[in-house]
Amino acid sequence: MKTGINQYKIGDSIDMYLLIKSAKKATASNGKAFLTLHMSDKSGEIEAKLWGIAPEDEATFVSATIVHVTGEIQEFRGMRQLKIKSIRPTTSMDQVKPADFLPSAPLDPEEMLERVTQYIFEMQNAKIQRITRHLFKKHQVAFSQSPAATKNHHEFVSGLAYHVVSMLELAKSIATLYPSLDRDLLYAGIILHDLGKVRELAGPIVSEYTLEGKLLGHISIIVNEIDEAAKELEIEGEEVLVLQHLVLSHHGKGEWGSPKPPLIREAEILHMIDNIDAKMNMMDRALMNVKPGEFSERIFPMENRSLYKPTFHDEPLDL
Amino acid sequence: MKTGINQYKIGDSIDMYLLIKSAKKATASNGKAFLTLHMSDKSGEIEAKLWGIAPEDEATFVSATIVHVTGEIQEFRGMRQLKIKSIRPTTSMDQVKPADFLPSAPLDPEEMLERVTQYIFEMQNAKIQRITRHLFKKHQVAFSQSPAATKNHHEFVSGLAYHVVSMLELAKSIATLYPSLDRDLLYAGIILHDLGKVRELAGPIVSEYTLEGKLLGHISIIVNEIDEAAKELEIEGEEVLVLQHLVLSHHGKGEWGSPKPPLIREAEILHMIDNIDAKMNMMDRALMNVKPGEFSERIFPMENRSLYKPTFHDEPLDL
Amino acid sequence: MKTGINQYKIGDSIDMYLLIKSAKKATASNGKAFLTLHMSDKSGEIEAKLWGIAPEDEATFVSATIVHVTGEIQEFRGMRQLKIKSIRPTTSMDQVKPADFLPSAPLDPEEMLERVTQYIFEMQNAKIQRITRHLFKKHQVAFSQSPAATKNHHEFVSGLAYHVVSMLELAKSIATLYPSLDRDLLYAGIILHDLGKVRELAGPIVSEYTLEGKLLGHISIIVNEIDEAAKELEIEGEEVLVLQHLVLSHHGKGEWGSPKPPLIREAEILHMIDNIDAKMNMMDRALMNVKPGEFSERIFPMENRSLYKPTFHDEPLDL
Amino acid sequence: MKTGINQYKIGDSIDMYLLIKSAKKATASNGKAFLTLHMSDKSGEIEAKLWGIAPEDEATFVSATIVHVTGEIQEFRGMRQLKIKSIRPTTSMDQVKPADFLPSAPLDPEEMLERVTQYIFEMQNAKIQRITRHLFKKHQVAFSQSPAATKNHHEFVSGLAYHVVSMLELAKSIATLYPSLDRDLLYAGIILHDLGKVRELAGPIVSEYTLEGKLLGHISIIVNEIDEAAKELEIEGEEVLVLQHLVLSHHGKGEWGSPKPPLIREAEILHMIDNIDAKMNMMDRALMNVKPGEFSERIFPMENRSLYKPTFHDEPLDL
Amino acid sequence: MKTGINQYKIGDSIDMYLLIKSAKKATASNGKAFLTLHMSDKSGEIEAKLWGIAPEDEATFVSATIVHVTGEIQEFRGMRQLKIKSIRPTTSMDQVKPADFLPSAPLDPEEMLERVTQYIFEMQNAKIQRITRHLFKKHQVAFSQSPAATKNHHEFVSGLAYHVVSMLELAKSIATLYPSLDRDLLYAGIILHDLGKVRELAGPIVSEYTLEGKLLGHISIIVNEIDEAAKELEIEGEEVLVLQHLVLSHHGKGEWGSPKPPLIREAEILHMIDNIDAKMNMMDRALMNVKPGEFSERIFPMENRSLYKPTFHDEPLDL
Amino acid sequence: MKTGINQYKIGDSIDMYLLIKSAKKATASNGKAFLTLHMSDKSGEIEAKLWGIAPEDEATFVSATIVHVTGEIQEFRGMRQLKIKSIRPTTSMDQVKPADFLPSAPLDPEEMLERVTQYIFEMQNAKIQRITRHLFKKHQVAFSQSPAATKNHHEFVSGLAYHVVSMLELAKSIATLYPSLDRDLLYAGIILHDLGKVRELAGPIVSEYTLEGKLLGHISIIVNEIDEAAKELEIEGEEVLVLQHLVLSHHGKGEWGSPKPPLIREAEILHMIDNIDAKMNMMDRALMNVKPGEFSERIFPMENRSLYKPTFHDEPLDL
Repeated sequence: MKTGINQYKIGDSIDMYLLIKSAKKATASNGKAFLTLHMSDKSGEIEAKLWGIAPEDEATFVSATIVHVTGEIQEFRGMRQLKIKSIRPTTSMDQVKPADFLPSAPLDPEEMLERVTQYIFEMQNAKIQRITRHLFKKHQVAFSQSPAATKNHHEFVSGLAYHVVSMLELAKSIATLYPSLDRDLLYAGIILHDLGKVRELAGPIVSEYTLEGKLLGHISIIVNEIDEAAKELEIEGEEVLVLQHLVLSHHGKGEWGSPKPPLIREAEILHMIDNIDAKMNMMDRALMNVKPGEFSERIFPMENRSLYKPTFHDEPLDL
Repeated sequence: MKTGINQYKIGDSIDMYLLIKSAKKATASNGKAFLTLHMSDKSGEIEAKLWGIAPEDEATFVSATIVHVTGEIQEFRGMRQLKIKSIRPTTSMDQVKPADFLPSAPLDPEEMLERVTQYIFEMQNAKIQRITRHLFKKHQVAFSQSPAATKNHHEFVSGLAYHVVSMLELAKSIATLYPSLDRDLLYAGIILHDLGKVRELAGPIVSEYTLEGKLLGHISIIVNEIDEAAKELEIEGEEVLVLQHLVLSHHGKGEWGSPKPPLIREAEILHMIDNIDAKMNMMDRALMNVKPGEFSERIFPMENRSLYKPTFHDEPLDL
Repeated sequence: MKTGINQYKIGDSIDMYLLIKSAKKATASNGKAFLTLHMSDKSGEIEAKLWGIAPEDEATFVSATIVHVTGEIQEFRGMRQLKIKSIRPTTSMDQVKPADFLPSAPLDPEEMLERVTQYIFEMQNAKIQRITRHLFKKHQVAFSQSPAATKNHHEFVSGLAYHVVSMLELAKSIATLYPSLDRDLLYAGIILHDLGKVRELAGPIVSEYTLEGKLLGHISIIVNEIDEAAKELEIEGEEVLVLQHLVLSHHGKGEWGSPKPPLIREAEILHMIDNIDAKMNMMDRALMNVKPGEFSERIFPMENRSLYKPTFHDEPLDL
Repeated sequence: MKTGINQYKIGDSIDMYLLIKSAKKATASNGKAFLTLHMSDKSGEIEAKLWGIAPEDEATFVSATIVHVTGEIQEFRGMRQLKIKSIRPTTSMDQVKPADFLPSAPLDPEEMLERVTQYIFEMQNAKIQRITRHLFKKHQVAFSQSPAATKNHHEFVSGLAYHVVSMLELAKSIATLYPSLDRDLLYAGIILHDLGKVRELAGPIVSEYTLEGKLLGHISIIVNEIDEAAKELEIEGEEVLVLQHLVLSHHGKGEWGSPKPPLIREAEILHMIDNIDAKMNMMDRALMNVKPGEFSERIFPMENRSLYKPTFHDEPLDL
Repeated sequence: MKTGINQYKIGDSIDMYLLIKSAKKATASNGKAFLTLHMSDKSGEIEAKLWGIAPEDEATFVSATIVHVTGEIQEFRGMRQLKIKSIRPTTSMDQVKPADFLPSAPLDPEEMLERVTQYIFEMQNAKIQRITRHLFKKHQVAFSQSPAATKNHHEFVSGLAYHVVSMLELAKSIATLYPSLDRDLLYAGIILHDLGKVRELAGPIVSEYTLEGKLLGHISIIVNEIDEAAKELEIEGEEVLVLQHLVLSHHGKGEWGSPKPPLIREAEILHMIDNIDAKMNMMDRALMNVKPGEFSERIFPMENRSLYKPTFHDEPLDL
Repeated sequence: MKTGINQYKIGDSIDMYLLIKSAKKATASNGKAFLTLHMSDKSGEIEAKLWGIAPEDEATFVSATIVHVTGEIQEFRGMRQLKIKSIRPTTSMDQVKPADFLPSAPLDPEEMLERVTQYIFEMQNAKIQRITRHLFKKHQVAFSQSPAATKNHHEFVSGLAYHVVSMLELAKSIATLYPSLDRDLLYAGIILHDLGKVRELAGPIVSEYTLEGKLLGHISIIVNEIDEAAKELEIEGEEVLVLQHLVLSHHGKGEWGSPKPPLIREAEILHMIDNIDAKMNMMDRALMNVKPGEFSERIFPMENRSLYKPTFHDEPLDL
């Protein structure tokens, strides 16, 4: 049985739900308007043209809408294209939700929220614990769905939560090996470092930045919130300042977006843990479909390198 | 009449007030402790040794203390040095204050506060005006005394206010020539851009950074305060975000400390006005004592350049 | 009434004068030669193909020629294209000139020459005044028509004069605020700094560099001319050298084309005034057609930034 | 009881063994030769002058010699200096060895060799295991004593072994969290990556580079040895090439000394593990003697940053 | 008579041998597979489509195969394209070899080998001579055919030998002018510096890197071989190390691929000779077809510059 | 017999001529003025104090004066110092000239002028020849004495001429190997490239820059002169422009002082020849006194590298 849009070939008929990821209006040479739709499910994406549209169609078939479509897969300039026979927007009756049509993290959101909660529970410094818990509770719904970025790494539904959970586990191992590290700071820094992304990114479906994301960035957003949380919880003391510093400096350098470099031991290590987890995610995905003895596609944020999978690595290794 | 410590020569006796700028304890080869004091008034600075000190002396003669001293100017390794005969800390009875012993801005603090107030008064966007006035009122005492930096430019008492007033006047001229500029934004950006220095710097006398100055920096400090002010004044709208962006981006680039580059017309111009006023201050001081036909000392933050004063410039020009 | 080529739509007929901005010969698959013409007036540009050309056509319809054309606007691959019915080169009888077909500065050339003359008139140092006047007079016709660059900023007819006049006014304001600046040097530096562009650029119509523009550049060209002017006027003294230095250093750094960095106070300020005026021009044009709440196209020479126009800015602000 | 040279104060007499770290000959103003000796034990270092030396003294008291000294601690220009009464080189009878006079790793060399051996034992790819074991066995004596560098990090006796053991444990944790990593490659890469240092550095006592260290560097040295080992063991296959690549690329970039960047997943992670362990070592030592609420000295290889120890960290934390 | 594929025009018939440089399979919109072939001879290259292919065709018409073709030159989108009538692979009976179909060095390979041999013969230091001769003999067949690079300079058959011979002659001249240079080192360095390319590049026809080329690079490859050669020849002494250093450092800097910068006089000069010969080759080819008074195409590895050929240079000059 | 000041040791008496290279006035702790003189001859330099000076002494013993001195060599803080018994300025009667007291080029100035003249004589393009000859004749006296720089390379009397002659010979060899090079351009470019140094540097004795050297630099100076020469000689044509370009671009890049990069084949090669000759000079001098098996002092303009002299290089090699 065909389970996703990517399984269909030229000539096949379809009758399925798809999510509109983007919709752009254009005018044909005969002067009539049409929409170019990119539609997806978890398996991949396909392009379609919706011809002869009325103004209300334009308002209906917008990005982030789930539609029910029938039609046929055709070939156009070497690419698959969907010829639409019928298309309608869905309602609550259809019982479909965007997350079902997007790639998402391998762990369940509930499970991830629980793990983060457990790390907060283990903290011993009450000030650090209370601020972290306060901000985490405040944003946990968005946190559990948000991607970690619009591209490059963890750019899928619940990517942020997955990135944070992986970093926490890495931090736990490292803190065991280097006992001079303050676990409370490390855990709190990890939980808060990208939390501003829930306001920086437009949401789990549309890969865009909000205005405050563009003008302030997720770092300044959450530094503000830590300040506010401390006032609301009536917490004073250097912990507040240090937590703000951990977030502020986690990109490592001015040219990477941090107005201050890490000046606390845990801030430096937070930056490195962030790096390792982001790179492992990029490398694993780049190599996922690469056969032993071949090179991956170029990975732009890793200086555009193309990675090699040795011939003595067998395929199941990174299934 | 000799008006300052810099006018006294080797062999002269003194009987005057001086401000201790720094005091460092050391041990002589005979095992006894002594203090090396750097003392100043508006005219300049002199070094002195205070021998055979008791523990209470160490606690008394600390930096930022004004003392009354008598003694004689001697020569030591080619430099003037003060041989102390008597020294005592001052009290309120002496009616002296640190500002009298430090170089300061050429304008009166009150006058400068009034000018800034006038610029705020002229703003037409009520949201911008209210936030700016709120933060300015909150910090105006410190603002009227703070230097603009610990070194390089405007590093004197009331240097911050002087820098801001000069920038406001420059902004007024520029906005007249380029009518597309929003004066409210420009004035507000100028008034707020370095206001975080009142919390970043340790005060008008001691040239040091506070802990939050080091870990967060004046940019993040005031971005936080704008957020808080808006909440307190119950102001919503894009103005809040744009004001934060103006401050955030005023260093121009990530490597110069701004996590976002200027993305608003007025933000770019704010950055350039800041630059012009800072450079004029550095250049004027470097050239102040240079004779026509000679080069100045090197100016470190201007790529270590040494500036030339043409022979056809006569001395009164920059008296 | 339709006032320019940009007002015509698909299906319209035209009968008008246009300027050939570029003409490229190619061979069709049937082996016959044709010309691809880009033709413009002040309102915009359109492409046309001239089929079945004879060798003399190739020599006639070259760039910078004004032609009279009749034809019809058609659609080709989503773009407007002009189908030519008749085309002829113009003669003096047609009473048309290239400047009428190109975007140009908002001020009248005569008016701008007069303003520059006034600034020269106000100079007090006779040597500086005479050299500046001499070179200005020598090149004033070309100066009044030349663009300031082939792209990025002020790249329109009379753009150079407009750039210089704006800079002079900005300089006047700044010199009022910072009295240590020598106005004569500042004005002379501004008038001369880009004057070499009249030899560097191929002229107001064709956006190209001359050979000496490519091999020497406008800076070295005018530095040579200052030398020559001084000899011709029998002027000696440091003023000659300082004027050459002002021009030489106005790009600020070696990597930006200045073999010496600014070593004179006025040289540094000249560089900054140049920067402000160029950036205001780029930003104003980028934002001109942007609606409040939207971002502009990317501005390449401003680190490829895209600028935001706040929602509280209403459209008439930058008409 | 005083346990080391650092515990003695001005005026104290000493009668102890010390190691000569460096000896430089100079001529006094009376024309007579003397030696300036820097002598150390595990607690620290002191300077002494040896006056009136004969040629044979010069040959005797060379760097890396252990001597027995009596004398008195004096003060010279604010520093402690040792006035030598008697000095003699030691023999095997004295039962002292250089390692007793140098700071060294907190683990026993035997213990560290055993741990590395265990990691080799666990490898599953026989080719990787045999090459690694061969080279490790060949150099294990020097490996167990060598510092990891002449300065910056792990620059003490057995520093190399300590660095490798810490990295192996970190690698084990990381490989558990990211199962796509090939443990054999990671362990082999760690064991071999700095093994060339046994030929690059002059030995555990003198902090200098050998000629081949300077002209080739430890990376090329061990890449050569892997080649040779594979030939000797008659091992063919991509494993040999990949091991060479892991070593070659472990500095990450050309400007950091790696002629190829990491092109294998494990090569990238090897580079990051190396980084974390080196930085933890630098940070822990810089903060060791810093009180809560204070900043450390500047750490040159970490962009010259000075790290802060929060006030809520109590001293035992990194005892 | 037409001597090469580049001489044929649209409409001409051909009946000739060509070399397949690349073959890529694709599927037409009718679902049938076809091959896109790029075929060349010494004069240039042409594209062809081979329609309706069977699986065995795909295995036959692979890159580096010489084929005999008949067909007709047609026009497709402004480019020449070959319409194939018949195509067959060649056998030894055809007496054709790839080198006959590729651009190659202007000197005969035998002649070049002889010249290099002569330089080796002239060496006076026996150790340097024996190692150089050993490695040269070992690789001389591949050396005489290999290009010097896959692109940029000397990227033709026997390009490596031609580059080396030119450099040797340049070295001879320079060593005559600067007698402090050691000719043996210079000659040996030149002969060995790119010899690793015979293992780094896939061969004279296919412009690709081998796996060891990608993971180790030609520098490390030959450094290994020098080590091995010395062991095999039982040569010891600093000469071995210095030869390795010459090769290792010949790219000049870390970011250009040399893990050590030149630390020997001859190493620095080797780097500069390499540079001059590579640049002369790039410049001569870029200017070859440029008319006096025009600019060449941009030369990417020379900072993307476009070179000018002066009008007073007549064409035969660089014929 | 002792031939120079460097041969004298502590305790020796002297009676000789020396050149004052610098003279600085200071005040002793007893309030009396004295001069610190650095005096040299070809062998080296020595410091002396001239005590109890009268105002006329200060005016007499200035830099660039040759004096006759008697005195004794003493030791001061580990350095030799001259105790002056008598000192008098010389007159024409003494028949001494500064060049006798400064290190100078190994070739005779007359000989070098003749060689340059010969290269000019061989030029075939009359325009290039006439401009080159004109400027060379104009400056030949200064050219024959000037150093090529104030430091780094060829910083001795006649260093400029020596640098130019070496470059011409190198150019001749290179042009023989690469026949596409235009010898006239190459020779003219070499002769003119640094000719501006005769106006940039203060002269053969005092290592300082003139004002026009600092504000314009030798490149712009000679570019101006080429322009002027062409006008004076009534030469027109592209040769003038190309000669200016050769000089303008000979530093290779903007950040190295060339406002245009080399855009002509000969300009690129001129830059490389300049580089080779400067580096050979720096390397030869750095290695001159280095024993085989040792490293030289660091060479600042060669990225601060320290060069190694192999043990198999015997000393006479670069005597």
